[in-house]
Parts: sequence; C-alpha cells; structure tokens
Amino acid sequence: MAGVQVLSLTTPSLHDLGPDSVELARCANDAVAEAIAHHPDRFQALATLPVGMPDEAALELERCVRTLGCKGTMLCGHVGHRSLDHTDLLPIFQSAAALKAAILLYPRAPAKTARNVYYSGFSPLVDAAFSCFGLGWHYDAGIQFLRLVLAGHFARFPNLQIILEHWGEMILFYAERIASMDRVSELNHSMATYFRRNLYVTASGMFMLHYLKQAARVVGRDRLLFSTDYPYQYRSSGDTRRFLENSGLDQADRQEFAHGNWEQLTGNLPHAF
Amino acid sequence: MAGVQVLSLTTPSLHDLGPDSVELARCANDAVAEAIAHHPDRFQALATLPVGMPDEAALELERCVRTLGCKGTMLCGHVGHRSLDHTDLLPIFQSAAALKAAILLYPRAPAKTARNVYYSGFSPLVDAAFSCFGLGWHYDAGIQFLRLVLAGHFARFPNLQIILEHWGEMILFYAERIASMDRVSELNHSMATYFRRNLYVTASGMFMLHYLKQAARVVGRDRLLFSTDYPYQYRSSGDTRRFLENSGLDQADRQEFAHGNWEQLTGNLPHAF
Repeated sequence: MAGVQVLSLTTPSLHDLGPDSVELARCANDAVAEAIAHHPDRFQALATLPVGMPDEAALELERCVRTLGCKGTMLCGHVGHRSLDHTDLLPIFQSAAALKAAILLYPRAPAKTARNVYYSGFSPLVDAAFSCFGLGWHYDAGIQFLRLVLAGHFARFPNLQIILEHWGEMILFYAERIASMDRVSELNHSMATYFRRNLYVTASGMFMLHYLKQAARVVGRDRLLFSTDYPYQYRSSGDTRRFLENSGLDQADRQEFAHGNWEQLTGNLPHAF
Repeated sequence: MAGVQVLSLTTPSLHDLGPDSVELARCANDAVAEAIAHHPDRFQALATLPVGMPDEAALELERCVRTLGCKGTMLCGHVGHRSLDHTDLLPIFQSAAALKAAILLYPRAPAKTARNVYYSGFSPLVDAAFSCFGLGWHYDAGIQFLRLVLAGHFARFPNLQIILEHWGEMILFYAERIASMDRVSELNHSMATYFRRNLYVTASGMFMLHYLKQAARVVGRDRLLFSTDYPYQYRSSGDTRRFLENSGLDQADRQEFAHGNWEQLTGNLPHAF
C-alpha cells in the first residue's frame, strides 16, 4: 500500500481568532476536501477547527467528519490563555468522542509566560529553537495530554482518542514516574491505563528503535502510527523501509504500524463515503 | 564496599534568602562536617551555599571543599527569578570549576509563573504532585542543565561537572531531538559532546533497565552514578543487588556504576584529608 498523506490547514494562529475563524475554517476544510476528491487514494484530512469558538468548532467537526470525510481533527495546544482541558473547550472533545474522531495534538510553542521563564535569554535563533523543535514544543504537547488525563476527560469520554507525535512528546519516556500521580489523581484508572486506552503515538520521522520500543511498551503495538514528518525529517524510502524491517516487529505488527493501526483508528467514522 | 550516604542541607528556600543565608549556610556545613567526622566511612557531604549571594557562595564552596572535605555542592534550580545560567551566578560555577567540585542539580518546583501555566487548575494535591515529582521537577532541572549548555558555561569552564538525578531528568530520553539545536547554538561543540563531557547522572532509585541503557548511550557508562533516593524510593538491598546483577553491565562496569565513577569524580578534590 502506498503512503497516505494526511492534510490539515490548522495553525496555532487560528486558535486565537474569534468569529472570523468560523468562516475561515469552513473555507479551509472545503478546499482540502476538494483536493482530496481529486486524489482520494493519496490524501486524507484532519478538520481545521475555529477552536476559539468551541460550540461552532464542535459543529464544524461534525460537518467535516460526516460530510467531508475528514478522519479527525488537529489541535495545537493552548487556546489563547486556556489550556486544552479548560471547560470552555469541552464541546470539542464531546463532539470528537461522539463521532469517534481522533484528535491529533500538534505541538505549539509554549505560552509567552512559559517561554519567558524557560526558553529565553539567548540569541533570537536559540530562543526560537529551544522553545520549539529543540524542546518546548514537546514538553508543551505532552503536558496538554497529561492535563486532559488529570482533568478527567477520559473518565468522561472513555472512547476519546488522542494522537501525540514524536513518539509521545517525551511523556512516554518517563511513564513510570508520571504514574506516581496515581496516588493523588482520584481518577477511575491509572495513568498507565489511559496511556493504553486513549493515546496513539506517531513516529514523526524519528527512526530510532529505542523510541519505538519504549512507545510500544507504554501504549502497546496496536497504538503506534508510522509517519515521516515530511518534509522536515525527510528520509529516503530506503531509510524508511530499513527502519520498518529492522524494527523487531513481526510481519503482522509491521503492517499494523505502517497503516493498519491508522485504518483501525479511522475506519469506523460515520461519514458518507 | 558499603554504601556511602551523601548529605546536604541545601533547600530551595535558602536560594531566595539574602545576607542571612551566608551564616546559615556556614552553620549547616559545619554541622554536617561534624557528623561526618564521626562516621567518615559512612557519610560524605555536598556543600550548602548561600546562592542568593553568589560571591559569598563561591567563597563558602571553597571553604567547604578545602577545609571541610565536601565533595561538591548541590543547587536547586532557579534562584529567585534568575535561572542558573544568569550571569550573577557565574562566580559559583567559576569556583566549582576551579576546585573541580561537582554540582548536583537537585530538582526544584518550577517558578510560580510556570506552575500557573502548566501545573495548576486541579486539586491542591494534584497541582502539587504534577509540579513536583509527577513531572515539573524533572522538566525544570533538565531545562536548567540545557540552559547552562546554551549559555556557554561548558565552553567557558570545560571541566565543570554537573550531576542530574533521575537518569538525567528526561532530557537524555530525547537527546537526539535536543541535538537539533546544534544548528543554531554557535557553541564549540555539539550538545552530544557536552552530555558526554560535563554531565553525570544518578539512578535515584528508578531501577529500570531501559533507563540505564538510554543514559549509558548518551553520557557513557563512566558517567552513571548509582543511588537509591532513600527513603523516597526505598528498595530492599536484595532489589538493589538484583538491579545491578541484571543490568547487563560486566563486573568492572558494575563496580564503576556502584561506586567507582563517584570516587573518580570526587577523588581529586583539593581538600586537606
């Protein structure tokens, strides 16, 4: 099977817009749907949502999934000053859970206050790198997921599925330590259980076996999604094939990782085609 | 060889005090030195410093190492509103480098602004756990180390040695991603080189082999320090022995991990006994 490219026009800036973002998101989604209609075997889409307008965003997600065939949506961390677990944003998660539409948490630069405390004081280039691909993106996205767990979103919506990129944005690499919060969380299940029930992770072009192993250990092999992060982490198709072949996964698990898990995750959406 | 317990009375609150902290630190160090004098084969010490008074702290470190036999010092992340790389604090690092005294970066709860952005909004117990042992401590301490690298401290003081606890406070688990900052850092060496030249990591009672393997991969086996984090992560001596025996390290590397690397790190200090 050839690779499928998943499109989304979501940008963090859309998160901070008001009413204008509703029409902007509709236009973006329609444009992407039209592109996919020309190459349905090459492209799929995640809905772009007017996240600053949560009720409208919930409705747009429904339109995108039911009418346009979108496979889920993509959110980019905090919305203005609100973390993703803020009660204002509940309608979006409710809609996603009802539609069985996955939510990809795309990394976003940390809020300005966090950037000031942690990621600034060097050259403009270093500050930017440190707060984004160097570390800040990954800490931020991982924290957003943990906040959803601690806020009880997965107790409330047991079937809600979140996708984290970059092998889980670091939190999987300290899962045993994070599990210490079970003592105080007052949730129905352990953190480890939510990792296994509500989280998918992508490779994002980080083709390193110890990352794959740790991710498989925490979320299970049926929750690993292959992805290349093209064009940022571009590898030749030969590199890609070698990574899969040397992954230590058997033939069936390799197929699941390469595309089966994604098809499983997105195969039962209530869309029309 | 029996285990050695390394004592330090450093507390984050000492970091935020003014002139009073100078005398307080002297008293603490003298008291610890007296305790050690009674059991020199059981205890060692890291100097407690009046970090808010950097020039005095540098002198106190020298007194502690040269006169009291301290093995290094322990810092607790940010000092008031200043990150550890702040130029005000340079005298402390200069003194440590000149004395060949290692600096243990003990995790501290993130600054209030970071706690507000990332680690609050749940119950008081969850907020506290999330910002401390659940995640915040570890993110904070790892960032402090990376800030020292990016600020050029190891270019300036090539022999300066930092110890991170908990297998490197997460940053070792994303070393390949952090290395992407090499493109913009304008340092003499790569991040990977500073990890291998200027960083030691402790086990802190997290007896998991995949942590040991990743730490060894990044800093090298000669920079791993065994520690139990007693009494927080208390394990029986049987557990401890099993972890060492099952570590995959050969007999010589096990000895180095158990005590040899620590002796190597602290064996050339200019103290009097």
